[in-house]
Amino acid sequence: MPDDAFAAATAAIIAAGQRMDRFGWVPATAGNISVRLLDGTVAITRSGGHKGFLGEAGVIRVDLDGLPLHAGDRPSAETGLHCGIYRRFPAAGAVLHGHSVAVTVLSRTSGDAILLEGFELLKAFPGLPTHDGAIALPVLDNDQDIPRLQRAVESRWDALAEVPPGYLIRGHGIYVWGADMPAALMRLEALEFMLACELEKRRAA
Amino acid sequence: MPDDAFAAATAAIIAAGQRMDRFGWVPATAGNISVRLLDGTVAITRSGGHKGFLGEAGVIRVDLDGLPLHAGDRPSAETGLHCGIYRRFPAAGAVLHGHSVAVTVLSRTSGDAILLEGFELLKAFPGLPTHDGAIALPVLDNDQDIPRLQRAVESRWDALAEVPPGYLIRGHGIYVWGADMPAALMRLEALEFMLACELEKRRAA
Amino acid sequence: MPDDAFAAATAAIIAAGQRMDRFGWVPATAGNISVRLLDGTVAITRSGGHKGFLGEAGVIRVDLDGLPLHAGDRPSAETGLHCGIYRRFPAAGAVLHGHSVAVTVLSRTSGDAILLEGFELLKAFPGLPTHDGAIALPVLDNDQDIPRLQRAVESRWDALAEVPPGYLIRGHGIYVWGADMPAALMRLEALEFMLACELEKRRAA
Amino acid sequence: MPDDAFAAATAAIIAAGQRMDRFGWVPATAGNISVRLLDGTVAITRSGGHKGFLGEAGVIRVDLDGLPLHAGDRPSAETGLHCGIYRRFPAAGAVLHGHSVAVTVLSRTSGDAILLEGFELLKAFPGLPTHDGAIALPVLDNDQDIPRLQRAVESRWDALAEVPPGYLIRGHGIYVWGADMPAALMRLEALEFMLACELEKRRAA
Repeated sequence: MPDDAFAAATAAIIAAGQRMDRFGWVPATAGNISVRLLDGTVAITRSGGHKGFLGEAGVIRVDLDGLPLHAGDRPSAETGLHCGIYRRFPAAGAVLHGHSVAVTVLSRTSGDAILLEGFELLKAFPGLPTHDGAIALPVLDNDQDIPRLQRAVESRWDALAEVPPGYLIRGHGIYVWGADMPAALMRLEALEFMLACELEKRRAA
Repeated sequence: MPDDAFAAATAAIIAAGQRMDRFGWVPATAGNISVRLLDGTVAITRSGGHKGFLGEAGVIRVDLDGLPLHAGDRPSAETGLHCGIYRRFPAAGAVLHGHSVAVTVLSRTSGDAILLEGFELLKAFPGLPTHDGAIALPVLDNDQDIPRLQRAVESRWDALAEVPPGYLIRGHGIYVWGADMPAALMRLEALEFMLACELEKRRAA
Repeated sequence: MPDDAFAAATAAIIAAGQRMDRFGWVPATAGNISVRLLDGTVAITRSGGHKGFLGEAGVIRVDLDGLPLHAGDRPSAETGLHCGIYRRFPAAGAVLHGHSVAVTVLSRTSGDAILLEGFELLKAFPGLPTHDGAIALPVLDNDQDIPRLQRAVESRWDALAEVPPGYLIRGHGIYVWGADMPAALMRLEALEFMLACELEKRRAA
Repeated sequence: MPDDAFAAATAAIIAAGQRMDRFGWVPATAGNISVRLLDGTVAITRSGGHKGFLGEAGVIRVDLDGLPLHAGDRPSAETGLHCGIYRRFPAAGAVLHGHSVAVTVLSRTSGDAILLEGFELLKAFPGLPTHDGAIALPVLDNDQDIPRLQRAVESRWDALAEVPPGYLIRGHGIYVWGADMPAALMRLEALEFMLACELEKRRAA
């Protein structure tokens, strides 16, 4: 695998971080971003640092178990959640994790799923050719023990007939994936938009 | 018709998409934008893709029935709604379709119209020289069958003494038109502003 | 008076329009902006057009009665409100008029004044050296007859022991002035901030 | 101490002011920003002026008692609060003070502290390795007598087993500090994010 692929993935991650920052979805050190390379390794943001101001040094390379390819690189603990998505879904090529106000507030006041229905933007999701469908977006309890959290995520996936390409962690943030970075970003925007509408609906009620 | 006109229309569409993105009105693949050319054909955004990051390849040319002039171009299904506006209103030179949170939430909690009154910005609309007038902005039910949706829009128009230059589709978005792109953008901003005020009023109530 | 002064005033007006647009305070054709020149004439935005995209041609020159110095220039009707401020307050060097959601919504749900108290930012206003003071921001009913509206504004001023450097027009917008453009912009930002807090307070109540 | 250090601190302060302005946290003349230099002196924004448009002339140098090193420089009254933080916390290298709508509204409706708990972003704070912890963010009454306000702040600190790196002044703003400017900015973003969530929670309740 030539370094060109890693450089291109890094550029896509830097640009995604800037856009997520513009929307306020990566406050402080929040969030992390990754791209799967053709050789099966993963380019992912390093632990710490602001995701709106990433430089090339802010992206490292790990294998599918989250182990760094270069000794001394320190992956974020949440690298395990990215790798869990890549291992389970061969079609996943990019993963985004952000913290928005809507995600944080709604995940804290919801049960184990948030139902999104009646939105035109649902057409952006697999198995939902029309706006008449619905997505039950899983909400998991937060846990600093990432392997245990990943096991909880997998149990939830096992119980679903169709797994939506995203889930929330309560009081923490959202994970979304797609075939590549543009697809992942568009799904993130679609989910954040629908969650912003849900929050607004609860206010006005 | 020289290609210059299509190039100018494309540039106007790209700039409009960037501005709509700045306001959060074209999340994910939402929205579409068109300009009528002097020869009666229409420059319109291609199906899919993010409207905040359009390139020249993102705009295609269709006739007033929505058929692409260049074989192989795939128009968005909603091209039919743009063409319906151009066929009905000879003065319409540009059409904008966006999804804002205010439009989405209000269209889902409203009946078949939203009454806007008492706003200075109503002066921007035809037949309303002062702020004392009012607009009943039509709200149509969403429908993935675009020809059927277009027929419902036309029935609504037929029943109105004066047709306001915009309508909402429930849970989906807004359509607005004007004599040219600046006029259409200003009407979109005026309507989005008044709808944002309406949403705020319902919150504070 | 050299043209340099008019050119400098025009540049200040263009920059102010861009900043007001960034905050969403000049949607569509809303708002207008002026600067008083040393010779007593006024540089002011022309009628119509978007205030976030002003060019040099978007600014004209009028006398203190609002009459254009160059035949054929069409001042906005609201030029009369700017001139009324300059005639009454010799220290006023710049006037800003904008439409924010907070101003529009609060002016429609308030009586003839909005009381601002307990804000540190009140220190930015004359006669209020500390945050313990208060401002009763006048709210006038909207009126398309601008001379009559200006007379109503003057009657209100006549009745006040101290005139705050700003007032609201119901459902329409805010007028604010200062010694020069930076001062006027800072007062506008201070008032918009306090009104945004008031709106938020009413929501959360 | 070479002037290079002061120039670098000034550049960091200018950039921080621009970012705070982007979020609307330094309206009008609100806010002030400082960096501690290695020689123990402090680079801090001058009194007055907009913190989103700082130039090099907008930053002055004071000692730890807030006295200007260059005669004629006029420090802001609130310089005393910055110096109070630097005197008490040897590890503090940068201090940010801003006014957001969330801070202003919440500080006015809260008692003498705001409890933040259950947020992933709490991990950004000292002594809180996990999201299971909580911060009781002190809220002080506003006071134009800055030495007296600083004594009130110190009394509050004296009473706390662990002092969180930030506090609110009622109806006024927030003070936050960190080891350097990036650390201080990230803590400010983390606190503003959590306060925005708290405000949203109260709305939706």
